[in-house]
Amino acid sequence: MTPPSPEACMARALQLARHGCYTTHPNPRVGCVVVNAGRIVGEGYHAYAGGPHAEVHALREAGDAAAGATVYVTLEPCSHHGRTPPCAQALIDAGVRRVVVAMVDPNPQVAGRGVAMLREAGIEVDVGLLATDAEALNVGFVKRMRDGLPFVRLKMAMSLDGRTAMASGESQWITGASARTEVQRLRARASAVMTGVDSVIFDNSRLTVRADQLALEDGETIARRQPLRVVVDSRLRLPLAAACLREPGRTLVATCTPDEARREALSRAGAEVLMLPADEGGRVDLRALLAYLARDEQCNEVLLETGATLAGAMLDLEAIDEMHLFVAPTLLGGEARPLFALPGLERMAQQRPLHIDDIRAVGQDWRIVARPSRSAKDEA
Amino acid sequence: MTPPSPEACMARALQLARHGCYTTHPNPRVGCVVVNAGRIVGEGYHAYAGGPHAEVHALREAGDAAAGATVYVTLEPCSHHGRTPPCAQALIDAGVRRVVVAMVDPNPQVAGRGVAMLREAGIEVDVGLLATDAEALNVGFVKRMRDGLPFVRLKMAMSLDGRTAMASGESQWITGASARTEVQRLRARASAVMTGVDSVIFDNSRLTVRADQLALEDGETIARRQPLRVVVDSRLRLPLAAACLREPGRTLVATCTPDEARREALSRAGAEVLMLPADEGGRVDLRALLAYLARDEQCNEVLLETGATLAGAMLDLEAIDEMHLFVAPTLLGGEARPLFALPGLERMAQQRPLHIDDIRAVGQDWRIVARPSRSAKDEA
Repeated sequence: MTPPSPEACMARALQLARHGCYTTHPNPRVGCVVVNAGRIVGEGYHAYAGGPHAEVHALREAGDAAAGATVYVTLEPCSHHGRTPPCAQALIDAGVRRVVVAMVDPNPQVAGRGVAMLREAGIEVDVGLLATDAEALNVGFVKRMRDGLPFVRLKMAMSLDGRTAMASGESQWITGASARTEVQRLRARASAVMTGVDSVIFDNSRLTVRADQLALEDGETIARRQPLRVVVDSRLRLPLAAACLREPGRTLVATCTPDEARREALSRAGAEVLMLPADEGGRVDLRALLAYLARDEQCNEVLLETGATLAGAMLDLEAIDEMHLFVAPTLLGGEARPLFALPGLERMAQQRPLHIDDIRAVGQDWRIVARPSRSAKDEA
Repeated sequence: MTPPSPEACMARALQLARHGCYTTHPNPRVGCVVVNAGRIVGEGYHAYAGGPHAEVHALREAGDAAAGATVYVTLEPCSHHGRTPPCAQALIDAGVRRVVVAMVDPNPQVAGRGVAMLREAGIEVDVGLLATDAEALNVGFVKRMRDGLPFVRLKMAMSLDGRTAMASGESQWITGASARTEVQRLRARASAVMTGVDSVIFDNSRLTVRADQLALEDGETIARRQPLRVVVDSRLRLPLAAACLREPGRTLVATCTPDEARREALSRAGAEVLMLPADEGGRVDLRALLAYLARDEQCNEVLLETGATLAGAMLDLEAIDEMHLFVAPTLLGGEARPLFALPGLERMAQQRPLHIDDIRAVGQDWRIVARPSRSAKDEA
């Protein structure tokens, strides 16, 4: 048998890493493959924070065959004692000959130290194989480490004429069951689900991951971690009876209104109230909220599920990294609710160009994945 | 060499027929293949009204080899003297053995007569091979013959959030050059291009086929026939200086306002003014207009290029058969103009379901082809 190519080994490590997609928060998803004499002798991935890192799993499986082996790992091995001992040391102790790393640790304070530690021990290290795929896998972790902000993914369900609800607010259900399964998976992979208080008031949505709606084998395990629910509620209007307050997991109410009585009532009802500065319009400073989520809640990916006002405000802040638009084959008409409120957009020259990454069928609906274009060049 | 299958022969005849896509108005697109001893000996298609029918071209090419041949033709051969002698007679005279017809003539007054004439002459006739494709090729001709109405194809250019223009009316250009080429081809294949007077006032569009924008080899030939321009103008507000009045081809102004002075002024400016009954809202009765276009103008396919009001009214009349939505990867925001005005649509239960036939990339834009679902079943 032909020995697997370096690309195939790293692709396998990436595939392993994806097994941790829904469970590693706040850690990155990491996969590892140990190859000796042209044969894969050990595989592993990081499954959950506090559990062994991918390298430890793979070295264990390889056993004595790790000596002299080449190790493929999707993220630079750690060099510090965290909840587990440093993986770089484990690789040195196992006597591996060579380590191929897809990307260095994006945390500027640790980047390169794992690689340096390995090299100092005489191990050959190559960096950069399938780096783009490795970055995509941990797009949120990378953004948090580099920019101190989470990766924000906006999800919207819309009609073909760009409407998310009737004028009355009625919206259930625009899209079908397959699209709702996709949304459940987007929630499950996110560190937090963010919404505006009006969406909670209108839909009384629970904002939870439901094991039975994930259509995944390990749905029960995945749903044990509920993403943090974040309700943007500048005036503390969240009803005390809101369904999301009685669900497993935490609900964070982000406000800029210093109303101690209301705050206490909400706390008793199950919410955690976060006081933030107000922006120029007297509303919660969304940049401050996102920075808080990255810094204090270690949020890598935030799923934004909301209406036109908050979606538009986030777009105008350039705070949306990716959009998943689920488009139902139906028309709701010109009186129905818009996708984005973008006040001040009056001329074609002010339009907000997007880059479309993917369009595909999801049941009877269509899913469009798009990114805001940061420049005219990106659009072409 | 294996002789071509009957399906392959008919598929070739359909392919030939498509060469007439832009030029046969008001006639149907028809193709013909003559097969003798397992070999194609003659091919033809109908190119333009008044010119020879497909069968005549194919029989000419076959010459003596037509005797004893099998003839594949996409539409039942005609049995009557029109601008040309009956094709059924020509087939009989040529001594063909068998005729395979994809579909009978949809005109209820002539349907089956060509087949009967051939059978009476002792020729074997089969009907129905690739009938669905043959109907699709002449969807407008078939509808006009069966229902006395044209097939209406709506074209709209929109942003991803379902907007066709800024609130000011500014709209040029939402979509890119490739999408505009597609629109030019939709115009070129149509018998008429229909719009509302407000669209003409806002955009001053010429509504013409431009040879250089078709990106087709025979663009010059195609653009020699300009589709009839139809402006729905209930109050006769069309500016006398409108660009479309000075273009080659005819402009029909459909109104329900009996203003003789304005009518004469418009006539002098180059328009033909058509007086129609008013509907309950005091606007042009669109059903009457469509019936007129089918009956008096022999319109098979009508391309509707217009704004939300007329598009919504046509949708509510169930007068739209197909939509081509060109979606640009951009956002125009909640203040911009909607796709469809659908007054009275207030509850989700009243939504207008669509069936999506196709989504594909057109340059940097996307084209969605959809049909209104006539029933809930059609949607599933």
